[in-house]
Amino acid sequence: MWQELLPIGLHPGSGGYRRYAWTGADGECRAWFREQAEARGLVHEVDRNGNQWAWAGDPAAGGAVVTGSHLDSVPDGGAFDGPLGVVSAFAALDELRRRGARFGRPFGIVNFGDEEGARFGLACVGSRLAAGQLTVEQAHRLTDGDGVTLPRAMEAAGYDPDAIGPDPERLARIGAFVELHVEQGRALDLSGDQVGLASAIWPHGRWRFDFRGEANHAGTTRLQDRRDPMPPYAETVLAARREARLAGAVATFGKIAVEPNGVNAIPSLVRGWLDSRAADQTTLDTVVTGVEEAARDHAAAHGVDLDVVRESFTPVVEFDHALREELARILGRDTDLKVPVLGTGAGHDAGILSGTVPTAMLFVRNPTGVSHSPAEHATEDDCVAGVLALADALEGLLRT
Amino acid sequence: MWQELLPIGLHPGSGGYRRYAWTGADGECRAWFREQAEARGLVHEVDRNGNQWAWAGDPAAGGAVVTGSHLDSVPDGGAFDGPLGVVSAFAALDELRRRGARFGRPFGIVNFGDEEGARFGLACVGSRLAAGQLTVEQAHRLTDGDGVTLPRAMEAAGYDPDAIGPDPERLARIGAFVELHVEQGRALDLSGDQVGLASAIWPHGRWRFDFRGEANHAGTTRLQDRRDPMPPYAETVLAARREARLAGAVATFGKIAVEPNGVNAIPSLVRGWLDSRAADQTTLDTVVTGVEEAARDHAAAHGVDLDVVRESFTPVVEFDHALREELARILGRDTDLKVPVLGTGAGHDAGILSGTVPTAMLFVRNPTGVSHSPAEHATEDDCVAGVLALADALEGLLRT
Repeated sequence: MWQELLPIGLHPGSGGYRRYAWTGADGECRAWFREQAEARGLVHEVDRNGNQWAWAGDPAAGGAVVTGSHLDSVPDGGAFDGPLGVVSAFAALDELRRRGARFGRPFGIVNFGDEEGARFGLACVGSRLAAGQLTVEQAHRLTDGDGVTLPRAMEAAGYDPDAIGPDPERLARIGAFVELHVEQGRALDLSGDQVGLASAIWPHGRWRFDFRGEANHAGTTRLQDRRDPMPPYAETVLAARREARLAGAVATFGKIAVEPNGVNAIPSLVRGWLDSRAADQTTLDTVVTGVEEAARDHAAAHGVDLDVVRESFTPVVEFDHALREELARILGRDTDLKVPVLGTGAGHDAGILSGTVPTAMLFVRNPTGVSHSPAEHATEDDCVAGVLALADALEGLLRT
Repeated sequence: MWQELLPIGLHPGSGGYRRYAWTGADGECRAWFREQAEARGLVHEVDRNGNQWAWAGDPAAGGAVVTGSHLDSVPDGGAFDGPLGVVSAFAALDELRRRGARFGRPFGIVNFGDEEGARFGLACVGSRLAAGQLTVEQAHRLTDGDGVTLPRAMEAAGYDPDAIGPDPERLARIGAFVELHVEQGRALDLSGDQVGLASAIWPHGRWRFDFRGEANHAGTTRLQDRRDPMPPYAETVLAARREARLAGAVATFGKIAVEPNGVNAIPSLVRGWLDSRAADQTTLDTVVTGVEEAARDHAAAHGVDLDVVRESFTPVVEFDHALREELARILGRDTDLKVPVLGTGAGHDAGILSGTVPTAMLFVRNPTGVSHSPAEHATEDDCVAGVLALADALEGLLRT
């Protein structure tokens, strides 16, 4: 099952995955999902927002137990972020059937669309739309780097963009959602555990910094006559690193767009994106305010205009305490497995759903902590431990 | 004549020109050149390197007087850089004929191919090839941002890439080359003169800095676990500004490429291009050495690998003293026009040719000094003064 998915969207040059929403590679992943569902006799359906579901039992009965994740990737991403949760869901179902587990409730596997936001700049579009955290108007305005809007991209992939919108009835049928994910840090590696349970997702957001100066000849314009946006951008990168270090948070400038981007031209525009996350809201505010102040000071010193736009924001997510305790109890029965509880700086569909549905997350150890990179890894042994823990959790939840 | 050229390659969004070598816009400019030549009864020819020539008289007679410039542009460049020299060449010929000037030697107008290097990263490809300053092997390896090689691009535009190479016989027929160009600084504006004569072109070069770190998740990777190439890049941008200021030189990071360039991914690669120029070689060496040392120190501190590659370099160019004095004498006859002599940080085909052919440059005042930008400008009055000065210079050189 895992082997079939591996070649899809793999870039031969980088060794990373380029599975962007509503592209050909995404379509191949979705076809794979449907095949896996139908091979197991599950009922496959696509909801109004393009999320894929595979059902055992009638979801209309309510109180469904759902697991899954996403199949799209960041640019040159790794093989595990997303797919491990979907593959483990099917594998856990196989394990439950092997055990002859009782299915006291409807059971579903989900593949959420456009989780990474690699193409349209906003993460978790599929789950946000379903949960009503993104309006149809906002979604219709999303545009990729080539100027293709989300509606046109969905249409090109054979979906109806006019159908998108909140899906409260569908979410109301879910009694518990459990997402398994490769860990994107080294907490389990450092504690020596194979599997962990999520406590909370740090609040996080994306801010776009537009430094606008004046394009000019790089060879003939005296330094004092320049309005060069690159030095204040550089100062802002360093300020972000400094503020994050002081606050015990993280802050990253990982994406940049420069105009005209010519070797012998002073730029007219340097656009940088800040991604920042912290354990609590106050800390995050402190970091972002500090970065923005530094950016304004340095832009002014260089005669450069600055606009800062918050492109997305997700408040702190505390996963459902009762569900987490129940999972800890279920998993605790297996005396060999210690399941530590840990927070994470990464956003997930589970975080989006947690506002409406009791939600939990399982993490599988990542020996290097590296994620969003071709070097992302989990050992086969740890992946099997993850599938068995997920199967235990689902079995416990499905029994009643 | 000027009006016909204006719409070609004009980008409606930026208001700047995108006339890149061997593209459609470049082809339209070249068709315009041929029409202008033929409308004046000049013999049009394209040399082995794709440079266009228009001849009055037989160049084989030797000692030819040639003027011209280039028609391609930087990304979102202005209307004057290049085209002013070609348009002024045709206008000066019209003026010489109106005056009934004597053509004692062959007279030529030239449009050099790919002067800006916007597409393949190396400036003055047409004149470098002709002058033997770029080998055929080097030229065949040039590749644009889409992976198209120079030979394939020339072929697509209808030229034979196997024909390129040194053209010493053609250059040996030229007795004097005069290039008129819009000034790319504010020296004439500050001195209050309409037209100036070039003394020298500063030594200048382009260096590519490749900072290689490790792609990772921006939300979950602790700062101390990162090998993020963006902070050392930022430190290097600031070091370049500092070194240039201390040395009275210029240094610019105007082009950048980031991989994977995702908002929530720590980059694996930040590639920045340094353009630096100074009045003399020693000063330039000091600046570039200083920037490179800073880059190495900061890369090492962040666990990031650094490669620095010199992509191009042009030593200081002193224009022909005898020709400059002759032009100063000719232009000095007109008592209304004071013609100051000035250096420039910009490279030109005239600089490339100056190694083999007696060469001079005329600059036309630029009221803002802005160049390589849609805001680049020269007044109509100053452009007319430029044409008349060029006509005077050519008349004096053609007489004998």
